[in-house]
Amino acid sequence: MNKLYVVGIGPGEYEQMTIKAAETLKNCDTIIGYTVYVDLVKEHFPGKEFLTTPMTKEVDRCVMAFDEAMKGKTVAMICSGDAGVYGMTGLIYEIGERYPDVEVEVVTGVTAAIGGAGVLGAPLIHDFAVISLSDLLTPWEKIEKRLLNAAEADFCTVLYNPSSKKRKDYLQKACDLTMQYKSPETVCGIVANIGREGETVKVMTLKELRDTQVDMFTTVFIGNSQTKRIGDKMVTPRGYRNV
Amino acid sequence: MNKLYVVGIGPGEYEQMTIKAAETLKNCDTIIGYTVYVDLVKEHFPGKEFLTTPMTKEVDRCVMAFDEAMKGKTVAMICSGDAGVYGMTGLIYEIGERYPDVEVEVVTGVTAAIGGAGVLGAPLIHDFAVISLSDLLTPWEKIEKRLLNAAEADFCTVLYNPSSKKRKDYLQKACDLTMQYKSPETVCGIVANIGREGETVKVMTLKELRDTQVDMFTTVFIGNSQTKRIGDKMVTPRGYRNV
Repeated sequence: MNKLYVVGIGPGEYEQMTIKAAETLKNCDTIIGYTVYVDLVKEHFPGKEFLTTPMTKEVDRCVMAFDEAMKGKTVAMICSGDAGVYGMTGLIYEIGERYPDVEVEVVTGVTAAIGGAGVLGAPLIHDFAVISLSDLLTPWEKIEKRLLNAAEADFCTVLYNPSSKKRKDYLQKACDLTMQYKSPETVCGIVANIGREGETVKVMTLKELRDTQVDMFTTVFIGNSQTKRIGDKMVTPRGYRNV
Repeated sequence: MNKLYVVGIGPGEYEQMTIKAAETLKNCDTIIGYTVYVDLVKEHFPGKEFLTTPMTKEVDRCVMAFDEAMKGKTVAMICSGDAGVYGMTGLIYEIGERYPDVEVEVVTGVTAAIGGAGVLGAPLIHDFAVISLSDLLTPWEKIEKRLLNAAEADFCTVLYNPSSKKRKDYLQKACDLTMQYKSPETVCGIVANIGREGETVKVMTLKELRDTQVDMFTTVFIGNSQTKRIGDKMVTPRGYRNV
């Protein structure tokens, strides 16, 4: 059987990969991914064939992965974080319908929400929502609705893709919507380049977050009504009753 | 400096632990956790001191961890999945205020939402909410509000702690609330014992989920309006426009 693994490599640091992910990459013939992620793992897996496509060419990348697998190679498609959270696993299963002879296996990883939470302290101890601010494939009205509903229900909220060159004011918009239900003093945090060179972390209020510039490598955390600062950490308690 | 690591061991299978988690456990003196999780890792880390407390004794377990660290031992507190999602990290930081001489470090892991998604296919490719159905520390009205808001905004929803002896009908209630906004035909999935002996997985409709009995080792996934079945997998597309 031709085999295609979809592998989440974690936030970026080799040690944050699962043992299974490292073994899968060690045992495969070909590693395929977006250029930036292939560069992150390259040095740890010498002797492999590496194939890349640019960021917007996700469909091409999946077809390439299946075509390589059809040649009899064991192929690993890599994603940062986990491949099942805004990653390639969905597209792989969709395109896989055309390749019944290739068996797909998912190897999970630590997504940015989890990796970033570990750097910030413990923001996600209680119920949370994960929302991408990218409106490339989702109408902005849908994103707006989710931001409002998450805020109204007092979820902790994690924002992926909080900014890009074309969407400079989206985080500001998201904070303004959130403040319709949450206090401007709500404890928030941002983490950039988790587990990579240049890792930065900052805890602040929602009001301060509104006026903060972030880039596409940043993950944003908005606390719930119980979230607090303990020292330089962002901590959400386990529940709403005293422990 | 006295050192306390809070380590997420992943869904259960040794290979799904991160490299960093395995190295941390290998290099520590004492491993502390809930009995079930200590039993899962014991064989892989011979020669360590293992300390356990029952499930409800979380505060005692944290105090024990700090007390052991104060003796000069390197201590690892373990949780299943990730320690930052309904895990011990929050409590560790709260109790840690009383132990300024102990340095806390978080080692992240694959939480059940991520691990279960990998088994089901790709249910969490788009925005999602994570909700625990346990009302031990959270008023049920708050849980209800979150279920309704998540359904209204068309989030994929992951349910932790979907059932226990005392809460036999909570999943049924959750499904009924969700059906106020989502179609009874919404694609759903359940995974039990992820990466452990007895792993089971099933894809079904929301209507069928309503009448399914699950236990506390099960994680439940409710799709969004776009989620579909591909073969025996549960797959959510990347967005709301055609790719």
